[in-house]
Formats: sequence, C-alpha cells, structure tokens
Amino acid sequence: MSTTATTSAGPDAALRYAAEHADRFVDELCELLRIPSISTQDEHLDDCRAAAMRLATELERIGLERVELHETGGPPILYAEWLGAGPGAPTVLLYGHYDVQPPDPLDEWLSDPFDPQEREGNLYARGASDDKGQLYTHVKALESILATDGRLPLNVKLVIEGEEESGSVHLDGFLEEHAAELAADCGLISDTHMPGPDQPSLVASLRGMAYCEVTVSGPTHDLHSGLYGGTVRNPAEELGRLLATLKDADGRVLVEGFYDDVLELDPAERARLAEVPFDEAGFLASSGAKHLHGEAGYSTAERIGTRPTVEVNGIWGGYIDPGAKTVLPARAHAKVSMRLVPHQRPGSTAALLRRHLEHHAPEGIGVEVRELHGGHPCLVDVKHPAMQAASAALAAEFGRAPVFERAGGSIPVVASFAQVLGIAGTVLMGFGLPDDRLHSPNEKITLAQFHRGIAASIRFLHGYAAAPQSQESSSAS
Amino acid sequence: MSTTATTSAGPDAALRYAAEHADRFVDELCELLRIPSISTQDEHLDDCRAAAMRLATELERIGLERVELHETGGPPILYAEWLGAGPGAPTVLLYGHYDVQPPDPLDEWLSDPFDPQEREGNLYARGASDDKGQLYTHVKALESILATDGRLPLNVKLVIEGEEESGSVHLDGFLEEHAAELAADCGLISDTHMPGPDQPSLVASLRGMAYCEVTVSGPTHDLHSGLYGGTVRNPAEELGRLLATLKDADGRVLVEGFYDDVLELDPAERARLAEVPFDEAGFLASSGAKHLHGEAGYSTAERIGTRPTVEVNGIWGGYIDPGAKTVLPARAHAKVSMRLVPHQRPGSTAALLRRHLEHHAPEGIGVEVRELHGGHPCLVDVKHPAMQAASAALAAEFGRAPVFERAGGSIPVVASFAQVLGIAGTVLMGFGLPDDRLHSPNEKITLAQFHRGIAASIRFLHGYAAAPQSQESSSAS
Repeated sequence: MSTTATTSAGPDAALRYAAEHADRFVDELCELLRIPSISTQDEHLDDCRAAAMRLATELERIGLERVELHETGGPPILYAEWLGAGPGAPTVLLYGHYDVQPPDPLDEWLSDPFDPQEREGNLYARGASDDKGQLYTHVKALESILATDGRLPLNVKLVIEGEEESGSVHLDGFLEEHAAELAADCGLISDTHMPGPDQPSLVASLRGMAYCEVTVSGPTHDLHSGLYGGTVRNPAEELGRLLATLKDADGRVLVEGFYDDVLELDPAERARLAEVPFDEAGFLASSGAKHLHGEAGYSTAERIGTRPTVEVNGIWGGYIDPGAKTVLPARAHAKVSMRLVPHQRPGSTAALLRRHLEHHAPEGIGVEVRELHGGHPCLVDVKHPAMQAASAALAAEFGRAPVFERAGGSIPVVASFAQVLGIAGTVLMGFGLPDDRLHSPNEKITLAQFHRGIAASIRFLHGYAAAPQSQESSSAS
Repeated sequence: MSTTATTSAGPDAALRYAAEHADRFVDELCELLRIPSISTQDEHLDDCRAAAMRLATELERIGLERVELHETGGPPILYAEWLGAGPGAPTVLLYGHYDVQPPDPLDEWLSDPFDPQEREGNLYARGASDDKGQLYTHVKALESILATDGRLPLNVKLVIEGEEESGSVHLDGFLEEHAAELAADCGLISDTHMPGPDQPSLVASLRGMAYCEVTVSGPTHDLHSGLYGGTVRNPAEELGRLLATLKDADGRVLVEGFYDDVLELDPAERARLAEVPFDEAGFLASSGAKHLHGEAGYSTAERIGTRPTVEVNGIWGGYIDPGAKTVLPARAHAKVSMRLVPHQRPGSTAALLRRHLEHHAPEGIGVEVRELHGGHPCLVDVKHPAMQAASAALAAEFGRAPVFERAGGSIPVVASFAQVLGIAGTVLMGFGLPDDRLHSPNEKITLAQFHRGIAASIRFLHGYAAAPQSQESSSAS
C-alpha cells in the first residue's frame, strides 16, 4: 500500500466545529456518565446495556456505519465502522470501554458518582476519565470531521466493550472470531494519562496483570473465641502472616521465581526514562500517602512503569459489622493482584503465587488461589507510522513533543491487538491527568483536557491519513 | 444470720411438676428463641425490648414480685424478686441475659436461627444455649417450686440484661445504683457448659476480655493499584504484617508486657486441673479444625482456662465484593480481642496492644486502637456454702460429683458481683455441652440437659436454703 493523497481540506474546519460545540459535547458526555454501567456487579448488567445502547445511537447519529451490538453473555461489545476512504487509505482500530469501576466507598464522594458535577474546570463522576470521557474525545473528533467534511480522511473501525473493569472476559473471543473484519494498520486508545496538562505523552509499554482471590481456611465453622481461642489456628491471623511473606520491608516481592522472566532495564532505556518529567511531589500529594515507598534501587517512575508488583486489593473474614462479636473465623480472604512487566505471563505468575502461599501455609491451614483474570504486559513499537503521526498531533495541540512513557496500568487489549490481529502499533494517547483519581472517590476529567483531546484526535486522524505508511506495518483491508 | 429450717417439703413435688410439664417448658423456650434479640445491631433494639417484655410477663405469671424493666438507653435490664422467705433465709441473686449474638454466616445454618427446630434430641436456634435456654432452666425451676409449694425456700432476686453480647455497657452502672437492694449471699448463673452430659462442673475461674478495633491507615483515599502499586505502602498489607507480629509460630503472644500480670499455675493447681476430664479428640472434632495448636508448655485445657490469648475476630479493607477491583485501599481494619486471666486488666492490656502496634507500624502508616469493651477475669471462692450446695445438687441430679473448671469464656458480671456487691461466691452452674456451637451457626441446646438443668436448679435452691450459712459470706438483707 502506498501513500494516499487525502481529499480532505485538513483539520481546520473540524477543529472550529469542535470549539463551537464544546458545551454540547460536555452535556452529551454527562448523559453517558449518568448511567451506572458497573460491569463487576451483576445487578448493573442492564445499566451496562443501556450505556452500550446510548453509544450506539450516538455513533449512528454522527454518521458511522454498521453499528452493531454483539451479545457476549455479559455486557455487549459495540462495533461500528466507516470505510469510505477506500482500500488505499489506512485503517484505524479505535478501542474504548463504556463500563466503569464500582463507586464505593460512597461516603467519600463530594457529589453523587452518577450525577456529574462541574467544579473549577473539572467534571466529577465515575468514569469521567476512565474511560467514558476519554473515549468520547474520539467520538466527538469523528463527529466534528464528519459534520464538516462529510467524510473521514481514513477508514475507522470501533470496538467498544463493557467488561474492561471485569477482566474483558469476552473480548479476545470476539477479536478472534472477527479477526479478518477487524484488520487495521494501527490501534488507537485513550485510557491513560499525561504527566501534566502541558506535557503530552505516548505509552511505550504497559504492565499486565494477574488478579487472584485467596481463601485461607481452618475450622469448618466459625468458633467462639472464648472456647477455642488459643487452641486452634485462626485463619484471619494466618492470612495476615501469609500476606506478610509476599514482600520484604522495601516492597521487593519475595514470591520465588517472580522476577525470573522480568526484562531488566538497560542503561540507555533508564537514561531515556529519566528524561520523562515526573512530578514526584505532585504524585505523592495525589496519593494522599505520607511517604513514597518501594523496591530499592529504582526511581518512583521506574517502579510504576518497569517493575512488577504485588498488591492486596481487598481483605475480609470473620465479623466485620459494627460492634463486637467474639468469633474465631473459619475462613479469611484476600484479593491479590500482580502487575506484570515484559516478559512475565499472567497464568504462570499466578501459579508462582499459589505455590508460594501453599508452601508458607502451616499444617492444617488450607489455601486456595483462584485466578479471577489476567492480561499480558506489552511493549509498543514506537517507530510505527501511527506513533509518529500521534507524536506530531500531540506536539501541534499541546505545543510540546510527547514523551514516551512506561505506564503502570494494564490495558490487556493492547497485547490482544498485537497477538490476535497482528497490530504492532497501538497508539495510547492519554488525555487524563495524574490526579484524576481513577477507581477512587471523586474521579474527574479536566474539561480543558477533554476539549484538547478532541482536537488532538482530529489532528491525528488527518495526520495519519496523510503520512507515509511503511510496508511492514500496513495490513489493512 | 443462722441456719433457717425450711418449711418446704423438699424438692420432690417440684421435680415431679417439672417432669410433667417438660414439653410445655420447651414450647415456652421456643417462643423466646423466636425473638431475634441481637444486641450488637441497632436495628434489633425493638426485638431486645420484646424479649425483655416476654420474660417479664412470664416472671409475673409464675409468681415473682416487683417485676420491673429498667431503661438504660440500650436494651432494658429486667429485675424481679421473691423475698417471702424472710430475713432469716439466704438470698440468691440470679443473673442471665436475653440478648444473643448475630447469626451470621446465615447460609451455614441448617434451619432458620430464629425458628427453633428439634432434631435428634437437640433444639437448634441462636441463643438456645447462650443464654436463653440456660436462663430458662432457672425460670422453670422457680415456676415448679412456686406452683407446687406456693412459696420458695429462700429469697431470690433476678437481674436479666440484654447487652451481654455487646459488652454489658449499662450493667455495672445498674449494679452500683441498686447495690443495697441487690445485696445477696450468692450469685447464680448458667451460661457455661459441662465437660460432657454425665460430668457436671462448676466454674472456678473465668477469663476476662479486652476487645479492640484496629484501624491501619495510609493514603487519604483509595488508589488505583496500577498507578500507585509498588510506590506507597498498602494498609491492607501493613495490617497483615502487624497482625503477624502478635504471636509467635506456637501462638505465644509477643505483645511486650502481655504476660507480666499473669498468675502462673502452681503445680498443685495443674495437678487438680489435669484430673478434670477433657475429651481432646471430641474438642478437636467440635472445632472442625485439622489440628490443635497453641502456646507451648500447656495442655489444651490449660490454654483454654488458664492462659491469656489474642485472637483476630474479623478483618476487612479495600474491595471485598465479588469480582475484581484494582484498588490500593486507604484503610484496613481488624477486630482483635484478648482473653485475660487473673490478674490482667482490660484497660491496661488494651494499652499494651496499642503500644505494640504503634511501635511496629512503619513510618507513614497510622494505627488507631479503639477499645470496644472490656471485662475483668475472676476467680471464684470454691469453699463458699453456695458452691457446696451447688456441688451437692449437681451430684444428686447427674450421679457424679462436679469437677471445678477454669473456663475460657468471659462473664464479666461475675467480677462485677464481687467488686460492686461484695458477693464472693457466684455459682456458675453450666448445663450447656461442648458441642453447643455458641456464637456459631447451628447453635443448639440438648433437651435432656435443659430438663436436668431445671431439676438441678430445683435441688440447688432447696439445698442451699437448708445449708449452714457461714458468717462471712452471708450479707443478705
């Protein structure tokens, strides 16, 4: 495939349209944010469906074609496309997710998580940044171009799922089943953040994840702690002991074999990463912790982006309601997730955790490790033409060239795009900010970022359409 | 006060009455068991009041006098008396409680905890043994004597509270306020168990308790574990580490100073205790644990009755609902109770726990230890005339002399009777069995024990009335 001259007049008309309709775009985002599409809780399945329906209606309205809801057994996968640029033009595969994390703890929200409120230039709601708000930057970019040019400068396919927060359990199956139809030259995702409002970034790698539920069991039933206390092992205490074996005092993981497959940073890569601005004081302030703390020998940015970790996400057992109950619990539980870096694998790392806990459990105490979901870590080809076009688009919009970041979060679909669809270049163009409080109370998106994100997306779509496509990374229909 | 010849014809008529009305007695107990009088949960305050009202009605019906509900702010304290034996006769102060533990986990009950069911000679319900069923043995003994003799052979005062399971917060104030009216020669309580159905026992000591809620805090809000994992301390992990510092591998408590005030067993006492039958295999089977495990150098019976312990009763923090949430929690909590032996004190032991946890918490991690309630341990005067009368009553009913036990549970009212009312001899005459599953799913009372308990109480009341009263322990009005 050779370079195709675009028939479009460039991004200017679309950029003007986006500026003129900025308030309406926010109102439409708010409509989507009002739907509590929490995919981890079965009682919100209908809400997930409602969010998918609203998006489908919106995509049809702005002019996308073949808008389809694919049933999965869980929340549906939304597909849409616009292929009018023809086989000579590149094809972008846009991914986003319409599901959100649970909002708890509810009492820490300053306003209802599902009634978006604007305060001091920020829009507060669950999903405002992760990912409804960021997904909408591209929806509104597509609308702006279609409304002004009547066409897009390239081909676009959209896959929007509703299970990202619950492990994307049906996504890989969908990608495999529709691999031929989904062929594209690059992926495009906005589900990450920039180092700061004036410093754009592109993601060069993502951590993977192995998320497990651990159950420690002892007595067959809860016991009276006065009658049995001090005579049998207490599973809540044994769980505490077992969790205490996972890391040393500095936070280095002690699970045997955990680091065996880890790709260590070479000096050149460390030097490049050290040039990425990282506001350590701001990061600490946004965490609300008193100190930063982590594996010795690595900077905070390196710990986030390049080192694997184990974290306890939840812990429970015995009597947890108000007041006192003198029970010796039969079982105790923990949710334990491991963030993985190249070339760790979720299944085998979960197996290492299981072996470690079983090895450290005392006689008579049962340990069950159930893998809830996993995702592979990945490295992005930063020389891909789409990455170059994204870099130019961000530089034009934000007035500064983007830095290439190694991100701490996990977006397993990037690995799936590479493995299932052969897409080497997925552009991870985040418009969030470090203080967006993803997964926390008072999640927000900064409205200026939302609007600049729309503009950057418009610039990218036009820029990539006009860019020379390298032979090897071009595989579109 | 000198020995008083009783005008009663002895226990035979009352024993016959109890045998004839055995089925009705069970039906009446079931009525009380149907009321979910859970004092640890505010929404059951009305149920606690309903249980107190039902008991009051019953006590009036059987012929007790001055039946009064004393308001406390929590569940009321029920008082009743029968003083017709006159100042020459001894006075017994009967204590019981009408409140019960929460029934959770509900799904492990074979029948509804508040719909009593009889299976294979046992009556299953929350409170069947602890303490509604055991309290009722004395209510029905009083009824049996009053119905047949028209009077009691001695004076009786009853104090029945509704906050035993939530720390008896208003009981000591009530005892202090009414100390003169409550004067008595002995206390009488059935809220413990016998070693087995053919081996009665009396309690020679009880453990006390200090019950605390521990909160470990780090970040000010829940964080995304992908963005912050590995860079700040995780309170759920730190809680695990802290709980792991409480005991060594054998279960010996490592809290500094914890054993300083503990009265060590002397060889003679150890020898006496070794003679108390203890079915270790049966105890293990009733626990449902795979092994017994505890402080080195002590037998299981010694660990239960004579050694203090720390137990984690509950643990919670972060995401604990089904599915996955990648959160790094801001806080994690544990309920930690300590069983105390003479001469430990609840307040100062809780202070030791606080100091230990604060000392072991790493920099930047907050630890709060809130004392939810406490009770003093106590030793009973086994030579008291009431203990001698109880011993004879149990021997007559069960055909074997009782053993003197050191009990693992906590009944703080026994210490209060001694300290506030000067009662040196409180008879702890338990009719429960070791497999009653107090505080656990499928709590039961064995009906044969219930009926023999009624008979033993009748024998005790008659026997104690006829016994010589020693000068020093007689202080009744």
